[in-house]
Amino acid sequence: MTALVLDGKAIAKKTEQELSQRVAKLKEQSGGQTPILATILVGGDPASATYVKMKGNACERIGMDSLKVELPEETTTEELLQEINNLNNNPDVHGILLQHPVPPQIDERACFDAIALEKDVDGVTCLGFGRMSMGEDAYGCATPKGIMRLLAAFDIELSGKHAVVVGRSPILGKPMALMLLNANATVTICHSRTQNLQEHIKQADVIVGAVGKPEFIKAEWIKDGAVVVDAGYHPGGVGDIELEPLKDRVAAYTPVPGGVGPMTINTLIYQSVDSGEKKITSQ
Amino acid sequence: MTALVLDGKAIAKKTEQELSQRVAKLKEQSGGQTPILATILVGGDPASATYVKMKGNACERIGMDSLKVELPEETTTEELLQEINNLNNNPDVHGILLQHPVPPQIDERACFDAIALEKDVDGVTCLGFGRMSMGEDAYGCATPKGIMRLLAAFDIELSGKHAVVVGRSPILGKPMALMLLNANATVTICHSRTQNLQEHIKQADVIVGAVGKPEFIKAEWIKDGAVVVDAGYHPGGVGDIELEPLKDRVAAYTPVPGGVGPMTINTLIYQSVDSGEKKITSQ
Repeated sequence: MTALVLDGKAIAKKTEQELSQRVAKLKEQSGGQTPILATILVGGDPASATYVKMKGNACERIGMDSLKVELPEETTTEELLQEINNLNNNPDVHGILLQHPVPPQIDERACFDAIALEKDVDGVTCLGFGRMSMGEDAYGCATPKGIMRLLAAFDIELSGKHAVVVGRSPILGKPMALMLLNANATVTICHSRTQNLQEHIKQADVIVGAVGKPEFIKAEWIKDGAVVVDAGYHPGGVGDIELEPLKDRVAAYTPVPGGVGPMTINTLIYQSVDSGEKKITSQ
Repeated sequence: MTALVLDGKAIAKKTEQELSQRVAKLKEQSGGQTPILATILVGGDPASATYVKMKGNACERIGMDSLKVELPEETTTEELLQEINNLNNNPDVHGILLQHPVPPQIDERACFDAIALEKDVDGVTCLGFGRMSMGEDAYGCATPKGIMRLLAAFDIELSGKHAVVVGRSPILGKPMALMLLNANATVTICHSRTQNLQEHIKQADVIVGAVGKPEFIKAEWIKDGAVVVDAGYHPGGVGDIELEPLKDRVAAYTPVPGGVGPMTINTLIYQSVDSGEKKITSQ
């Protein structure tokens, strides 16, 4: 059996074409207005700078604008909160991305939660998480929401399936678990304190690696015919799951790179376009 | 082996003594002020009326006041929102309980979410759920938080244990799962679409029945030595779990009645006293 490749790069590219059309239409109808995503980068971490740049480039590709805010390494929580507040009050800004992680002196949670719900297109606020969890309208957290969109694009059935999420971080494991639950999967959440991790993973119809350690999840723990989603990305182009031995015995898998990563950025711009449309067409 | 009885009634009674002392002290220090819980009952459902009355009585027993708001069956969402808004703005009210369920014409979620975070002592808002999930300060949803308090009172270890929650409702299954996860349990959430429910339950070190159907979960599905938590209550004094055959082979169980129920009300008043203390001592 050859596994279905959940090609996030291809789905992202296809979606970008649709988004370009939506942005062009919006511009035409509004006398030139376009959705604007504000990206905030604090400090000089090269990986974070690269991610922010990739996000800006994605905006550009679909005709959206981005507003780049770059703050020094020594920025305080109060200064960042003030910046977010300015962007909340800026009627031209439709979405706000605060690049994770921020330097250690900053209260990241307080800053995430300062983002106005209607501009939280990266899905990082507690309020947005709570609303999503309860089935209320809210932008989903970008990585898990990107995974849900990818699974949907390939018609992967989730209802009644046993999904095992390894990891419980605020912007990955936890929202992933609630999204899968709301899609009617039976969900198990494993983490660093889990006993018998292998036994849990062996039962997974759908396994999501969201643990942040290279090839931490071994191929032999995963059953034949499973759907394998790898949200990790590490130097050398490996994810959280030992993928190579699985390619001829699982039902489907996300490649690393080119699986989850492109869908994260795609979800960010997808939700930014949504927000821009809502705001601009309501004027 | 005789199972440990997780006697919620006894723990609630003991806690009420402590709460009485805290309320008395607060009155003394503040020139007679006491925490006030506003209870809102919409319509004439007799079970709901009984619950609200029990909650009012619990306030009375510890020296707190309650403000009873009773609205007619035909109340609209707008009218209820207005009432909640009044209570949010009333500086003498420290907690607000909207008795679930409300009549079908009312948007219960909108009304829950209108409750100010600092007065959400029943833990029903999306914001409170999101904050609790992310480990931020928030009042927990009363029934699952009551269960956590009960398990803590009997030193039941949760870290690394496999907890299986059967049910995913907004005010029981979902917050229960997140609270157990935050206590470092490995958590599986089962529900009406779950396949092979028995197989999941058989693995549980801790099983929480939150499904709302009398004795839906059979004794034979539960392994020896498990901790059994039954959040159901049905006519005839049975819960969601077939309990009788388990009493000599599990490690611990919540009796029905007298287990989870008293802890729910106790948590509501516990959190109301907290809120009252915060507000009154900050004046």
